[in-house]
Amino acid sequence: MNADFQGWLKNRQSQIESYLENRLPADNCAPERLHEAMRYVVLGGGKRIRPLLSFAAGELSGAEDESVVVAAAAVELIHAYSLVHDDLPCMDDDTLRRGKPTCHVKYDEATALLVGDSLQSLAFQLMAEFPLTDHPHKQLEMIKQLAQAAGSRGMAGGQAIDLASVGKLLTLPELEFMHIHKTGALIRAAVMLGARCGEGLNDEQLSHLDHFAKCIGLAFQVVDDVLDAEATTAALGKTAGKDAEQNKPTYVSILGVKQARELAEDLQKDAYRALDHLGVAAPRLLQVTDFIVQREF
Amino acid sequence: MNADFQGWLKNRQSQIESYLENRLPADNCAPERLHEAMRYVVLGGGKRIRPLLSFAAGELSGAEDESVVVAAAAVELIHAYSLVHDDLPCMDDDTLRRGKPTCHVKYDEATALLVGDSLQSLAFQLMAEFPLTDHPHKQLEMIKQLAQAAGSRGMAGGQAIDLASVGKLLTLPELEFMHIHKTGALIRAAVMLGARCGEGLNDEQLSHLDHFAKCIGLAFQVVDDVLDAEATTAALGKTAGKDAEQNKPTYVSILGVKQARELAEDLQKDAYRALDHLGVAAPRLLQVTDFIVQREF
Repeated sequence: MNADFQGWLKNRQSQIESYLENRLPADNCAPERLHEAMRYVVLGGGKRIRPLLSFAAGELSGAEDESVVVAAAAVELIHAYSLVHDDLPCMDDDTLRRGKPTCHVKYDEATALLVGDSLQSLAFQLMAEFPLTDHPHKQLEMIKQLAQAAGSRGMAGGQAIDLASVGKLLTLPELEFMHIHKTGALIRAAVMLGARCGEGLNDEQLSHLDHFAKCIGLAFQVVDDVLDAEATTAALGKTAGKDAEQNKPTYVSILGVKQARELAEDLQKDAYRALDHLGVAAPRLLQVTDFIVQREF
Repeated sequence: MNADFQGWLKNRQSQIESYLENRLPADNCAPERLHEAMRYVVLGGGKRIRPLLSFAAGELSGAEDESVVVAAAAVELIHAYSLVHDDLPCMDDDTLRRGKPTCHVKYDEATALLVGDSLQSLAFQLMAEFPLTDHPHKQLEMIKQLAQAAGSRGMAGGQAIDLASVGKLLTLPELEFMHIHKTGALIRAAVMLGARCGEGLNDEQLSHLDHFAKCIGLAFQVVDDVLDAEATTAALGKTAGKDAEQNKPTYVSILGVKQARELAEDLQKDAYRALDHLGVAAPRLLQVTDFIVQREF
């Protein structure tokens, strides 16, 4: 990783951290325990991959920093809420996340449920409260886009398909369909909302960017599956080997590790090609792409 | 109940029902089980008190029907999601709702979790997707208002306070604080969002309307507590006597039934007075108020 990118990464990670820190309700504000738990799950952890994508896409479209950070934070709050709910006993029943006890282990199940619910509300509050663009009509469209990405035909729907697939043999297209929803929809929203905070890209460019986002979303998941199969719990900060243990279909269970790695590289190349079509250099998005695909590989 | 109001009531209830019916994803659209469960919990039941308040407030401010029904549906979706999550074993652990098995009993806990999550997303999607007013800036403010009403300093926060209060002796002001959040915030949003779809009320009138909404929200809860203590499970369509069984503080446990009834009547009068201050007749809101306070009394 070159020094310039490393500096950018740290900078952007601390920017999103301090924005979230300021926007989350204080833990001395009632109900204190709920607010403390919301801060516990959101702050001080995570690679912030979705916000990084928003920032990189925002730079490309000439967006203002103060706008992109709002959209990036909203996407990250939706992501954080989904992790809290996914870790609950009735879902993946996980006890470790980002190297810390999961929310329902640290607090209790009811609190974890309400933490997730409240983080989702807060995401939409931020999207409506602060100006993302000079065009309120466009801001409404962006809120709709985030809601669709989060909902039953996006992330939550992907989670439902995931649950229904435990113990089943899926084909590669079926697995892809699941992940396009479960992780892909929100990653796509992260890229597109970041870009739409600016005015610098035309519709054709936005459509290439959308294709880039789809590729990168899938690549992210393929890498996740490889890491789950190969990395240690300590390195991941979450329980490793859960997929095989829970008999979940993954890219590794269908393709094996070698072919899964090759698929990730193919998707990475496909993402590069989509960026080529933009007609403008997108060095940050290229760097973030490599950062996503090559983590721990 | 007079015939005119009865006609209005049926009309509005069927209007919101058919709007929700059209906006909820079809149950033959993937993921089918999730969409079927979303429709199961939202459709075909409930008095639709919050939408009725939105409609009555919208009539007062000269709002278009096509706008008010969107806001009313969004509020009802937030309410429906909260019921599904509240009924989960880690919360109130209830098995009966609107005379039918609760979502996690009919389906399973994971599905109920995702149903609630998806209904919340859908509420914000509707608020952003369809025009509520001619002013997109105002629509953004309305989305913010709904998000605040739903979140950790609104409904979800009230639920957290409720959980923390089980088995405790609360004072009347503490109980009121809880309910202002738990049920009050969303009822207030129902009234105000309905009114704000139109342009007919000035800021002073809106502030009286807001006071009306606070009174009616509390009155609603007091009546709920009395009904829980006095009505049968069959009449309620949900398990009666749960509050006492779960050792929850209620208006009845603090005041007794007689004084709780008197409090409901006082709040009703306070609500009437707030409407008097509007300077325009608000016959529908008066009728809906009576409908809320006098149900089953």
